[in-house]
Amino acid sequence: MPELRRDPVVGYWTIISTERSRRPVEYKPDKISEEAECPFCEGRELRTTHEIYAIRKSVPTPDSSGWQVRVIPSKTPLLVSDQKIARFGEGIYDLMNGVGRHEIIVESPKHSHDLDEMPVSHLEDVIAVYKERINQMETDPRLQYALLFKNHGQMINARQLIRHSRSQLIGMPIIPKRVKEELLGVKSYFDRRERCVFCDILRQESSEGLRVVYQNDAFFAFCPFASRAPFEIWILPKKHSADFGRLEPSDFRGFAETLKTSLAKVRVLLNDPPYNFILHTAPYRHKKKDAYWKTLEEDFHWYLLISPRLTHHAGFEWGTGIHINPTSPEDAALLLRETGV
Amino acid sequence: MPELRRDPVVGYWTIISTERSRRPVEYKPDKISEEAECPFCEGRELRTTHEIYAIRKSVPTPDSSGWQVRVIPSKTPLLVSDQKIARFGEGIYDLMNGVGRHEIIVESPKHSHDLDEMPVSHLEDVIAVYKERINQMETDPRLQYALLFKNHGQMINARQLIRHSRSQLIGMPIIPKRVKEELLGVKSYFDRRERCVFCDILRQESSEGLRVVYQNDAFFAFCPFASRAPFEIWILPKKHSADFGRLEPSDFRGFAETLKTSLAKVRVLLNDPPYNFILHTAPYRHKKKDAYWKTLEEDFHWYLLISPRLTHHAGFEWGTGIHINPTSPEDAALLLRETGV
Repeated sequence: MPELRRDPVVGYWTIISTERSRRPVEYKPDKISEEAECPFCEGRELRTTHEIYAIRKSVPTPDSSGWQVRVIPSKTPLLVSDQKIARFGEGIYDLMNGVGRHEIIVESPKHSHDLDEMPVSHLEDVIAVYKERINQMETDPRLQYALLFKNHGQMINARQLIRHSRSQLIGMPIIPKRVKEELLGVKSYFDRRERCVFCDILRQESSEGLRVVYQNDAFFAFCPFASRAPFEIWILPKKHSADFGRLEPSDFRGFAETLKTSLAKVRVLLNDPPYNFILHTAPYRHKKKDAYWKTLEEDFHWYLLISPRLTHHAGFEWGTGIHINPTSPEDAALLLRETGV
Repeated sequence: MPELRRDPVVGYWTIISTERSRRPVEYKPDKISEEAECPFCEGRELRTTHEIYAIRKSVPTPDSSGWQVRVIPSKTPLLVSDQKIARFGEGIYDLMNGVGRHEIIVESPKHSHDLDEMPVSHLEDVIAVYKERINQMETDPRLQYALLFKNHGQMINARQLIRHSRSQLIGMPIIPKRVKEELLGVKSYFDRRERCVFCDILRQESSEGLRVVYQNDAFFAFCPFASRAPFEIWILPKKHSADFGRLEPSDFRGFAETLKTSLAKVRVLLNDPPYNFILHTAPYRHKKKDAYWKTLEEDFHWYLLISPRLTHHAGFEWGTGIHINPTSPEDAALLLRETGV
């Protein structure tokens, strides 16, 4: 059972992940696995945990072939769903048991390396599944937030790197610190100006044009002014909307095109670097007790953050919270705009 | 000139470091340099920037041999000192020029790899220099905080890894976000209980004994309850003190012994892993305008955080601010206690 522990000074939470427990000798570089060993490929459904959702063209038999996008529970979940939430103290310290949900969204039946290699119509299916799973998790009253993210091309604490395109969705019983900070930030901006800060960013970026990467009718991709990573990209819907879970199917295509183009530019310009993407969307609203949730619809604006991992954090970044970016977002955006895909 | 840019949503600052500007092709692995090329070794003083401070046994001629510990300005400073602070806006965005100081503390005349290889008496000299430089920077009225840290064994955005033991001190015109959060945390704890949270931590850790790594009369080393990294260690003075800059010379030896023992245990148990250490100390107090500075002496308690870098951040950690630690601090402390050095 994973355990959430709270630091008594600043209040950050840490997951002590006993499922992933490691002795010192196990902290060593991992290996890249071959397609022949990949459990996520079509035809190897029985090698994974049991399917909980899929888009299929043919007869819907779970854990068989014929799927386009497939969702399974994580084999080594960070948070587990078969418990009630328990919060307790240990002297001056605070703990919670690690309740939540952890799903893997396998984005292609083929051993595709990444989303930008797939047709736009397939990406629309992937986006539909993101939305479906986020909204499904909202029906669990214990959960306050669901984080959708992708780790691409990184050997992250895993024993091996499997290059089959997939994302992860983790439903949590708390609103994480990073999300709370963003919600407080948008609220404070709105309180002063009665405008959404992201709509203001869109207006300024669109008129200056310096940091634009790509846009179409409904979506806008750019390198943010205070980019914490070189070649960081944010994709925003042009129409104000707080909640990715309410994305209209008519907008799937515009988002798919923008995502595919942005990822393809990153791959070509930077030679297929490792990257993360993280969906920034509104928390679940079935618990309306916090003040900053009340005005969420007008304050907040969902976006997808794509962050290539070209630099590393060290003492300065950990000690201050200030990131060092050696490439200005203006230079990054210019290079990305000029990269043909 | 480096530029500090502020994110308009959450308010984080990013340093756009033009001095370190890189084109995409330059983001590639770096090389380890040999002792023969090391500019920090005794006898090669003219290959570095000009010395600004040193502990010497013989005649004090700067930039010559005969030193024990030597301080030089960074060749590629993150922040520069020859400017006035300027803050300005660009539409909805906020900027500052990157004013500050950036010094390198070379901790040995020999090509020593790390502090735990040196005699305790030499470490006392190193600690005296840390204190001297932190206090010297306080005389610059533009600076609000100085961060002392070490990056050991990591190829951090640098072009090459030079394995000569040294730390860095960066004086900043702002109190960084991470430090502000900690100050708010200790204040909120003190307001409720009228006790220092770190003194309470010391009492609980000392009585439970589960997470102790090493202690002597004046210092206590342990793995914190919510350790964000596996084998993370905090070293605290047992006597309450907010400010490392006020450390008594009579305490240098106890701190040196604790630091040497802790680093040696990490090296032996984990096979010389990369690590960072970060000094958490009070901000400069010549600008007393903020409320949380007023009670600083009783609220805050300085400590040194040692964090081995065995895991990597990915989408979940960046998206939530929650760290995943695969080794419980109780297991880590037990293994570290049992490691003979």
